Amino acid sequence: MSTNPTTHFSYTPAVQSIIPLIYVAWSDRVLSPTEVTALQRQAAELSFLSPGDKLQLLKWSNPLSPPTPELFKYWEIMLRQEASHLPLAKRTSLVDLGLSMAKTAALKRQQESDINWEADEVRQELEVLEEALQQISWNTYRVLFPSATQQKIAEQQKTAFKVEELIQLLGGEYIEIKQKAKKLLQDPVFAYQILPEKEAYRQQVMAWTKLLAAQGLGALSYPIEYGGQDDIGAYAAFFDTMGHHDISLAIKFGVQFGLFGGSVLGLGTKKHYDKYLTKIGTLELAGCFAMTETGHGSNVRGLETTAEYDHDSQTIVIHSPTEAAGKEYIGNALHGEMASVFAQLIVDGENHGVHAILVPMRDKAGQLLPGIRVQDCGYKLGLNGVDNGRIWFDNVSVPRENLLNRFGDINEEGKYTSPIENPSRRFFTMLGTLVGGRVCVPRAGLSAAKSAITIAIRYALGRRQFAPAITEPETLLLDYPSHQRRLMPLLAKTYALHFGLEYLSNRFTKHEGDDLREIETLAAGLKSYATWFTTASIQECREACGGKGYLAENRFAALKADTEIFTTFEGDNTVLMQLVAKGVLTSFKKEFHEEGTWAVLRYITDRLGTAITELNPIAIRNTDRQHLLSSDFQLSAFSYREKSLLYSLSQRMRRMIKGGQSSYDAAMACQTHMIALAEAFVERLVIEQFVQVVEEQAGKSIFEPLQQLCQLYALHTIEQHKGWYLEKEYISSGKSKAIRRLVDELCGTLRGQADALVDAFDIPDALLAAPIIR
Amino acid sequence: MSTNPTTHFSYTPAVQSIIPLIYVAWSDRVLSPTEVTALQRQAAELSFLSPGDKLQLLKWSNPLSPPTPELFKYWEIMLRQEASHLPLAKRTSLVDLGLSMAKTAALKRQQESDINWEADEVRQELEVLEEALQQISWNTYRVLFPSATQQKIAEQQKTAFKVEELIQLLGGEYIEIKQKAKKLLQDPVFAYQILPEKEAYRQQVMAWTKLLAAQGLGALSYPIEYGGQDDIGAYAAFFDTMGHHDISLAIKFGVQFGLFGGSVLGLGTKKHYDKYLTKIGTLELAGCFAMTETGHGSNVRGLETTAEYDHDSQTIVIHSPTEAAGKEYIGNALHGEMASVFAQLIVDGENHGVHAILVPMRDKAGQLLPGIRVQDCGYKLGLNGVDNGRIWFDNVSVPRENLLNRFGDINEEGKYTSPIENPSRRFFTMLGTLVGGRVCVPRAGLSAAKSAITIAIRYALGRRQFAPAITEPETLLLDYPSHQRRLMPLLAKTYALHFGLEYLSNRFTKHEGDDLREIETLAAGLKSYATWFTTASIQECREACGGKGYLAENRFAALKADTEIFTTFEGDNTVLMQLVAKGVLTSFKKEFHEEGTWAVLRYITDRLGTAITELNPIAIRNTDRQHLLSSDFQLSAFSYREKSLLYSLSQRMRRMIKGGQSSYDAAMACQTHMIALAEAFVERLVIEQFVQVVEEQAGKSIFEPLQQLCQLYALHTIEQHKGWYLEKEYISSGKSKAIRRLVDELCGTLRGQADALVDAFDIPDALLAAPIIR
Repeated sequence: MSTNPTTHFSYTPAVQSIIPLIYVAWSDRVLSPTEVTALQRQAAELSFLSPGDKLQLLKWSNPLSPPTPELFKYWEIMLRQEASHLPLAKRTSLVDLGLSMAKTAALKRQQESDINWEADEVRQELEVLEEALQQISWNTYRVLFPSATQQKIAEQQKTAFKVEELIQLLGGEYIEIKQKAKKLLQDPVFAYQILPEKEAYRQQVMAWTKLLAAQGLGALSYPIEYGGQDDIGAYAAFFDTMGHHDISLAIKFGVQFGLFGGSVLGLGTKKHYDKYLTKIGTLELAGCFAMTETGHGSNVRGLETTAEYDHDSQTIVIHSPTEAAGKEYIGNALHGEMASVFAQLIVDGENHGVHAILVPMRDKAGQLLPGIRVQDCGYKLGLNGVDNGRIWFDNVSVPRENLLNRFGDINEEGKYTSPIENPSRRFFTMLGTLVGGRVCVPRAGLSAAKSAITIAIRYALGRRQFAPAITEPETLLLDYPSHQRRLMPLLAKTYALHFGLEYLSNRFTKHEGDDLREIETLAAGLKSYATWFTTASIQECREACGGKGYLAENRFAALKADTEIFTTFEGDNTVLMQLVAKGVLTSFKKEFHEEGTWAVLRYITDRLGTAITELNPIAIRNTDRQHLLSSDFQLSAFSYREKSLLYSLSQRMRRMIKGGQSSYDAAMACQTHMIALAEAFVERLVIEQFVQVVEEQAGKSIFEPLQQLCQLYALHTIEQHKGWYLEKEYISSGKSKAIRRLVDELCGTLRGQADALVDAFDIPDALLAAPIIR
Repeated sequence: MSTNPTTHFSYTPAVQSIIPLIYVAWSDRVLSPTEVTALQRQAAELSFLSPGDKLQLLKWSNPLSPPTPELFKYWEIMLRQEASHLPLAKRTSLVDLGLSMAKTAALKRQQESDINWEADEVRQELEVLEEALQQISWNTYRVLFPSATQQKIAEQQKTAFKVEELIQLLGGEYIEIKQKAKKLLQDPVFAYQILPEKEAYRQQVMAWTKLLAAQGLGALSYPIEYGGQDDIGAYAAFFDTMGHHDISLAIKFGVQFGLFGGSVLGLGTKKHYDKYLTKIGTLELAGCFAMTETGHGSNVRGLETTAEYDHDSQTIVIHSPTEAAGKEYIGNALHGEMASVFAQLIVDGENHGVHAILVPMRDKAGQLLPGIRVQDCGYKLGLNGVDNGRIWFDNVSVPRENLLNRFGDINEEGKYTSPIENPSRRFFTMLGTLVGGRVCVPRAGLSAAKSAITIAIRYALGRRQFAPAITEPETLLLDYPSHQRRLMPLLAKTYALHFGLEYLSNRFTKHEGDDLREIETLAAGLKSYATWFTTASIQECREACGGKGYLAENRFAALKADTEIFTTFEGDNTVLMQLVAKGVLTSFKKEFHEEGTWAVLRYITDRLGTAITELNPIAIRNTDRQHLLSSDFQLSAFSYREKSLLYSLSQRMRRMIKGGQSSYDAAMACQTHMIALAEAFVERLVIEQFVQVVEEQAGKSIFEPLQQLCQLYALHTIEQHKGWYLEKEYISSGKSKAIRRLVDELCGTLRGQADALVDAFDIPDALLAAPIIR
């Protein structure tokens, strides 16, 4: 950029000097009598104007012919240009601006001139005129110099609560580890890099992972004797925070310490811990979690890799019988030294189902061991810093001890033994130890969504486009109702999910006794609901930032692409939601076998029948504000939806089974119904948690904004399902409209707190790192 | 992969030889008396079984203790493994399979054995047993060898129409140019490449663009005397087809020939054509379309770049007054020699608003000319093969002739002249010449969506996961109702949009007289509606393909990322939808100025008042199948929604304006309402076109599937708006439920035609290029 702004040819330096004053005089599109007098008389007498200048001035001071919008726009451009070269302090004086413009013009014209623009007399003459034209309005100033700093101050003045209180609440029990994580990840060594070539990117991510391991963070969840802190909650909180950084790092970290290490910890026994766990936690031993195959992903029981025990050699032979039995999408496949391989365990001609076996893959030099073939999965939609690959085994023998034998073992005599008799129950128990991934992944995803929403909202509080009139500042994006409708419900849902996932994490880390099955249902549901939200919300935020959102530097590209697979991995969402529905059905009776389906269904229909058919005719039509905003109404509406879907599902399935269909076919026919029930279950759970958190804040400054967020989440969700509620005649047409109006209103109300509400996410600038909000 | 399959230790070669027969005997989970006899008597007498083998066999032929599902799974794995090494023809014989297993086992065990597995006697003994066990069922075969080819044949047998007829219909008037495009793009030189580094990728795209230009394709829409064919329709059809290929190429092509060339053609005059148009069409002269600035994108009238005329030198000086006035996201910025720069044209101190001026940027050696600064926009979410950059001008002088002077000129005397007096009208007329982009972009986007849907549906017709029972084949993804619900409505909407965009293209290419304003409204609406669909549908298709969808090789990554910006560029969708709403309001009265708002609103309310308040109480509750499937009901429902939203919008705005608000404030307050109206307008338009196309096919084989697609689009759209319809009491609760059931049913019906319906998109395999559907 040239430091000498251009001169505009058409005006003499003298005319340039009074442009700021003329602009301001006209800024309300009216030239008042005082202004006319000032311009036509006083200005016309300025000693430094030529006759030509005076003619120009006269033309511009005729109240009957205001400057065209185009001319006015041109003056505005000139003023802004000049102002951008002035020190900030000088911009408050129109006279300074005018003098500066005159000087620049004189310099550029390089003409001889009698006027000394530095002279005091000239300044005084202009100041007299400025005085006569009255003060410049604040609005005019905002047109000329919309200032991000001033906007930030204005937003902060709107904040009606203590942001620090909200930071503490969101930080929760593990706020310290989160702060530690943020501090670490802000270190320059973790600065984002765009590394398009996957090899370089993977090396970077591996190096970062080692740095985290060196801080002891990989082992957080492992027992103390293996270098850990025995604190799965801290691990989850750390993983959560990594969602604000490069997600490839989070996933690499999760594969190594959570999945690979987790399989050793959860499925192995002391001999494995002693041998491997410390090395895994320090990343001395990099490993894979080799479960999914090309042919079988969701259907884990259908895996085709075999692990056949040979008692003569006391070895287990791992084999991929077909190409499609190759392990697929395996993280660490290119860097890993060892893999936890899930395979059908065959002992003495009998198959005992899927078990995990530790299989060495590479020697210390990184060379693949005999019988192992690895293929790079190549470039992916995202997460290109993670080395996903395919792995095939050709009769690879490993010692018997490599079987992770917590739930199934081969004894000295070569016989299979297990503490769990039933193979199906054994299978689900093994998978259950891996529920941690479904707790952690949605949290990292939500962190990414928080980053995206923070960027989008801050951008919308700085970016202006289209003015109501030529003399008014352009409108802030976040002042557009459509923009509020885009972003505010996302913000509310982010808060809702934050508390929902906190609840899940607490249930998971503190679980005791036999509630694991219930936690699995919670995890499956919240994982799906939250990760779908992550994808949808980042997309909306990208669009809300327009072209700027499309540039890699502004982070949406990575946030979106890297979290996009969260809806698929750690369990495909559509499949998980069906598990949730089964879990909801099951929770009515502890024992739910295929045989018992019908009994369970009858039990549910009997129990819910009256509860959901008795609707209150007054409540249906109640459009009272207090009523709609009350958590009573909201909780009832969410709960009604869940119960009603459960009731109708069980009725439908019962009818089908009675009619002779198998329970498989009945479930198949009711698949979309099951998914709807699962969603209703998760939403009821989330609103319950949110309402409870709000109630606990009574008396604090954050009570009101949190309550409003909770109301917005609740009413917006009801609005999204209004078709269902109206169909069920749970709400009247008028009530539905009233809800829409309240959602609009809450979006507007919360817009005033938007700046503070994203500040409360407490994401360091170095992690947001988007130039559009600098 | 080893070519020697593993031996399973536990069974002798002799036992291996009868595993296929035992597997089939048990495949229905029942061992019939005949089978028991065959196994326990005949098999036990096989000469080559040892006493140990016989014991094993006895254990497996007890009808009271069937093999566990795990054991059965193991046998299945063994059979599949062996079969994968057999030639296809041999797989039909269980005896061959058994012999092959025995041979492999013998080889592996390397034990001395008396049995010669090649001997005729051995084969005969097994054949007798096979005979005794009856024929293998077709189902069992499908479990063992699910064949993509057989699936394809099965799907083709379901096809109830002539695919070629549909290909012709979709190809339309310009089918030849589309076929030419497909032929060209299948040439190996256009084979997809993953080029992660943007520089290499941009070079590749530039080279491709040159190849297309050399075929005369860049100039398609230019006059014949400049190497073109004067055929904008052919250009649009070619661009449409490019949507199946690398979208970076389409955009690079569009920037050069459509935007840059289009600005010269649309805004320039003969002197510019003579000098530049041929060179542009051959890509001898690469250029930019420099409209958007960092500070102003949607608000083009607010651009800040100045173009000031200096009569002394007869030059126009182009200048970027501030950093934010730099041109932003400009395609070809790194390769371009010249730019069409949009700037405020200042003549003699007067600003005449935004005009385009041709500004040379680089010399033939590629060096930037003085005063021009270019910055690379860097990596983007997608389209990394396009060189987007920022451009600033520091007092760059160009000759007066470089003004593209069709709608505004500077004469010899240095005075500004224009055939259009009103600056606002002039501005919109200039922008209007660029509507072509809004016609082409959604078509390329829809082509990308067609590719994604084709891949997702073909994958869903090959991929199986989860079996109803261990002895049944796993279920095809597309046989899951939830999967049908995911993909079938997308397929229907793709067809709907195809015909909608064809209509728009026809209106655009054949337009005459003063219908350009109406076409702009159509283009703005369909562009927004179609590009939002593109983003949403590719996302859904990616998820529907699970982890495989995430791999770059399967194309979703590029299809999604590259089209994602379509919702923003060529006009931000949210902004465009408001233009549409204004257009819909305006269409009621030709003259719609700010002053006239109130009159228009009153006119609309008066005219629509009775039309939308008179609802037929019988129709509201009519759940009759014929009624719901009729285009009469569907058209009425769509039209009612549009009219009703228009009515309520005009009422609301009227009330506000009456209450003293400005029409700006009223429009602002009604923003989301306006967007809803715009959507209803587009949907009504689309269904009308679709219904008409269907009616025109009466008597043809494609009539029925097209009608079903149209019904699905219509009912699914009504279902999506059911909240609105129920709120308005346009449909009863029962009718809403009946619609949902019909949508389910149509998804199921069309699933049978899915394979053929995507075949009709006629996308060459080389352009789909996804390994998952190979």
